[in-house]
Amino acid sequence: MAQRLPWRFVAEWTSEGEMVLREVKRIYAAGATRYQEYMIAELAGIGKALVLDGKVQSSILDEHWYHEALVHPILLAHQCPRKVLVIGGGEGATVREVLRHSCVEHVTMVDIDEELVELAKKHLAEWHQGAFSSDKLELVIGDGRRYVENCHRKYDAIILDLVDPMEGGPAARLYTLEFYRAVKGCLRPGGAVVTQATSPTLSPRVYAVIRNTLAKVFTIVRPYVSYVRSYNGLWGFVAASDTVDPAKLSAKEVDELIAARIRGQLRFYDGETHEWMFRLPLPVRQVLSETRDYATDEKPVYVPV
Amino acid sequence: MAQRLPWRFVAEWTSEGEMVLREVKRIYAAGATRYQEYMIAELAGIGKALVLDGKVQSSILDEHWYHEALVHPILLAHQCPRKVLVIGGGEGATVREVLRHSCVEHVTMVDIDEELVELAKKHLAEWHQGAFSSDKLELVIGDGRRYVENCHRKYDAIILDLVDPMEGGPAARLYTLEFYRAVKGCLRPGGAVVTQATSPTLSPRVYAVIRNTLAKVFTIVRPYVSYVRSYNGLWGFVAASDTVDPAKLSAKEVDELIAARIRGQLRFYDGETHEWMFRLPLPVRQVLSETRDYATDEKPVYVPV
Amino acid sequence: MAQRLPWRFVAEWTSEGEMVLREVKRIYAAGATRYQEYMIAELAGIGKALVLDGKVQSSILDEHWYHEALVHPILLAHQCPRKVLVIGGGEGATVREVLRHSCVEHVTMVDIDEELVELAKKHLAEWHQGAFSSDKLELVIGDGRRYVENCHRKYDAIILDLVDPMEGGPAARLYTLEFYRAVKGCLRPGGAVVTQATSPTLSPRVYAVIRNTLAKVFTIVRPYVSYVRSYNGLWGFVAASDTVDPAKLSAKEVDELIAARIRGQLRFYDGETHEWMFRLPLPVRQVLSETRDYATDEKPVYVPV
Amino acid sequence: MAQRLPWRFVAEWTSEGEMVLREVKRIYAAGATRYQEYMIAELAGIGKALVLDGKVQSSILDEHWYHEALVHPILLAHQCPRKVLVIGGGEGATVREVLRHSCVEHVTMVDIDEELVELAKKHLAEWHQGAFSSDKLELVIGDGRRYVENCHRKYDAIILDLVDPMEGGPAARLYTLEFYRAVKGCLRPGGAVVTQATSPTLSPRVYAVIRNTLAKVFTIVRPYVSYVRSYNGLWGFVAASDTVDPAKLSAKEVDELIAARIRGQLRFYDGETHEWMFRLPLPVRQVLSETRDYATDEKPVYVPV
Repeated sequence: MAQRLPWRFVAEWTSEGEMVLREVKRIYAAGATRYQEYMIAELAGIGKALVLDGKVQSSILDEHWYHEALVHPILLAHQCPRKVLVIGGGEGATVREVLRHSCVEHVTMVDIDEELVELAKKHLAEWHQGAFSSDKLELVIGDGRRYVENCHRKYDAIILDLVDPMEGGPAARLYTLEFYRAVKGCLRPGGAVVTQATSPTLSPRVYAVIRNTLAKVFTIVRPYVSYVRSYNGLWGFVAASDTVDPAKLSAKEVDELIAARIRGQLRFYDGETHEWMFRLPLPVRQVLSETRDYATDEKPVYVPV
Repeated sequence: MAQRLPWRFVAEWTSEGEMVLREVKRIYAAGATRYQEYMIAELAGIGKALVLDGKVQSSILDEHWYHEALVHPILLAHQCPRKVLVIGGGEGATVREVLRHSCVEHVTMVDIDEELVELAKKHLAEWHQGAFSSDKLELVIGDGRRYVENCHRKYDAIILDLVDPMEGGPAARLYTLEFYRAVKGCLRPGGAVVTQATSPTLSPRVYAVIRNTLAKVFTIVRPYVSYVRSYNGLWGFVAASDTVDPAKLSAKEVDELIAARIRGQLRFYDGETHEWMFRLPLPVRQVLSETRDYATDEKPVYVPV
Repeated sequence: MAQRLPWRFVAEWTSEGEMVLREVKRIYAAGATRYQEYMIAELAGIGKALVLDGKVQSSILDEHWYHEALVHPILLAHQCPRKVLVIGGGEGATVREVLRHSCVEHVTMVDIDEELVELAKKHLAEWHQGAFSSDKLELVIGDGRRYVENCHRKYDAIILDLVDPMEGGPAARLYTLEFYRAVKGCLRPGGAVVTQATSPTLSPRVYAVIRNTLAKVFTIVRPYVSYVRSYNGLWGFVAASDTVDPAKLSAKEVDELIAARIRGQLRFYDGETHEWMFRLPLPVRQVLSETRDYATDEKPVYVPV
Repeated sequence: MAQRLPWRFVAEWTSEGEMVLREVKRIYAAGATRYQEYMIAELAGIGKALVLDGKVQSSILDEHWYHEALVHPILLAHQCPRKVLVIGGGEGATVREVLRHSCVEHVTMVDIDEELVELAKKHLAEWHQGAFSSDKLELVIGDGRRYVENCHRKYDAIILDLVDPMEGGPAARLYTLEFYRAVKGCLRPGGAVVTQATSPTLSPRVYAVIRNTLAKVFTIVRPYVSYVRSYNGLWGFVAASDTVDPAKLSAKEVDELIAARIRGQLRFYDGETHEWMFRLPLPVRQVLSETRDYATDEKPVYVPV
């Protein structure tokens, strides 16, 4: 094959007029499902990645920075979560991390996009690592919003592994007051929820709005921050509950809980990482303290690009 | 589906540090054959297009500017071509144009890349328009070089519809003295050959070298120039023969020959277009007159990017 | 200085979602005048260039393809032009070409942007080659529209060397019926006008509209086409007059006129180039024949990007 | 002025085939000094910024994330720094932060690039805020390496505010063992040094090598990590000393020291931010623990792009 210059690129807009351009080195699959355009490809800088509607969902380089940050804090802060609900998470990596917890007996995963889940099963084995065939897993293809509004089963933990809220996108109604109320209705006593919460540096207002919206429904709300290179910035999460408080865990406690309750070797999360995530740099705290808005079905919040 | 900014691009390098970037609006097929990387996609500006190893091969916008310019001058300048050989031309559009000529009884098409031909059959119907199922066509999957070196059948016209000569690419040996000698060996008396010849403005030296190399083998050699927006510049061709001279045709003669010998309506080529193509702007003539090199198997010529 | 990857680019949009990206290798001057943003810089592929509001105005690589094509056809087709008006042409290269004509006794150049002209004098010596200090030149800083509406002097030839008509740009009112009527009022009997006319391939409708608008005012209207790599496509011009017809000149006549009336060596324009420019490929003729619109002050025409 | 699409971009390469592209909205100054190419411009996403050799040095959006993180930890961990040496820091913002410390009586700033310092004085007032005219400041134009090798004055703290080590760049010799030994020779007893240390995520090996190299010279070496959006990732620093240990400071102590010793209002650094910076996520700790190399004049370290 000929030597040649890079000729295919994926562009991720981080604000108006600002984008990250990554060479596409190899395409595994590309097209459109009923809900979104997708590309599974080898990208310069971050390696194999899933891109949906122009947004990198996760890459082989650092999907663990994201998935471990999302899953472990609330599951370890919970006394012993047995039933877990994952909404979204098409790659299967969130379920993979949940299944590491020895407490967990059952996981329900609800994803709206069946084609995407099939693509993940086929092309993203490094992500799910067989999680889709666990007999603890029940996979539901359907609308996450409707699922929690009609949930028959109650859960100890609910993990919202969603695409960003984009105007017209499939997830905008999964960041609103009405949705979080429904989420609360699906939690068992002592339960907790966590959501990805966009970037506190690229879309600080959105991050703060998600925190504020959860704070209308739960008494303990803990915004925390990690970094995901594949997402081009600091990345935010919010944990919420009426009883569970991951911010109270010390590094030492986290390390002990990992040893006691998580199978296999974590690559990102440990005690010191936990403390790093739950301390926030001053400008992030300022945005949180200055923003008063929250999101409703009628007035949802969207990322700017 | 969400409103969103352009997020996939194809880049074509026109020189070092200079590229044309086109949004990919929809991907029909993408991957790699044994010989080349391909993408069949809807591109901004030029519409549906076939891209091989980062070079647009043709687009729905102006494939006729290219294919009609390539095929018709030598076929009309020939007394009445009955047997035609096409080397390359995977899209099927060159064969489509050849089959319009009422003189033509047989076309052999030789393309090395079977997967690509299959993709064209499936995804490029606007190009081949059924040409692949003509019973005048014999499709040979194989190496064009080897084919002409061992040709059992002789041809009135040979049309070289090739990718540019790139270092390590599949076509570099199809622009050399040795190749053109073999081509001549496949021509019937009174026969003619034409090759695409890269851009006289983007790679003027390559264009001149191809002309020079043909001039070592044939007595009548006519460089001509069209324009193909999808190729980002003026585009060159060279016709060669010992008897056939398309440069001698006047606009009037061309229009009469079209009326007499070509079925259907041409969209690019006619008498005035013919005159336009066979007059060259001074700087192109100067490059042709100043370049002395020719290409051999040992010292082939390559496009700069 | 450190080895490094390209880090500054100029992007020229050729349609929505399609752009030419050129590395900026060196910046000679960059900023904004009262009328437009400018950059004079060394660009990959085309060398030193003047860029205004994101459009390459001309480059060292092929400014002669543009300026010789613009100036010489009407000046040679004219019996012997003594007074010439140039509107626009800030680089000074149009005046340079006009001054080569031995007939010419006086040139008025009207450009609205004094800062730009000063930048050209300082940074674009390869363009003007001293033309600004010719004692045949009168340089008027002012609005071209107003100048022709109030012209005290009459001219044998008027050359419109303008930026493209862009919404809100400085030249939109220099492509309308009202403007061309005023232009006609400034012509001496036997006079002619020529305008750059955007690209017949990138903005074919605009090209046809300019032709149509001139045809409302003049009886002889000759669209012709060259190619300018720095403008990313075929490039259009329209010559108009009630008496002068450059299309009637044969190659031989053009060569004789050049020998008789032009000082120095032309690099682009000669008899064969002339014939090449005045023959149009069929798709260009089709756009011209299918477009009926013309531009007025009330309903001007704009390039699409 | 015309409405138009973005047409000027600055590209920052974050790895081979991966870049951040930012529209240039306005250029304040652009050119080349004796040492480096520069652009001071309004960039999409990050606002007014200084770019040197294609790398954003700091932007109005978050220069405080960088400069406060660089300066304050070692100055507060030091008992009371009276004399401070800054190497690099052309923008003047590092000196600005140093001068906030009530302990500080004298600052020497050594920058090799006089033209750049003059540009900063003129165009980057938001950065230096008058710091260049402080009578506590001695500005030395010269080579930082030579300065520390011949320093007549000794310092309580030395702050290395340098461009990244690039092959052929002006700073490669300011990250080596020999340099750090010379730095130590300029420190008073109880003194400390801090250096910017490239990105622990984009160039993790370089970050670890800088830590290792300092560890050959000092007994207390504290790598810490912040985030700077304008630098496209987590950003690393290393503090080193034989006595001063910023890692020992608690959030509470930092807040008290700020109140006692820093004038004005900090916008990034406080106690919680301090704790955030001195806790490192596991993958960063792993790179640090796995890398054994250090840099010498003979075998320096360079950022990959």
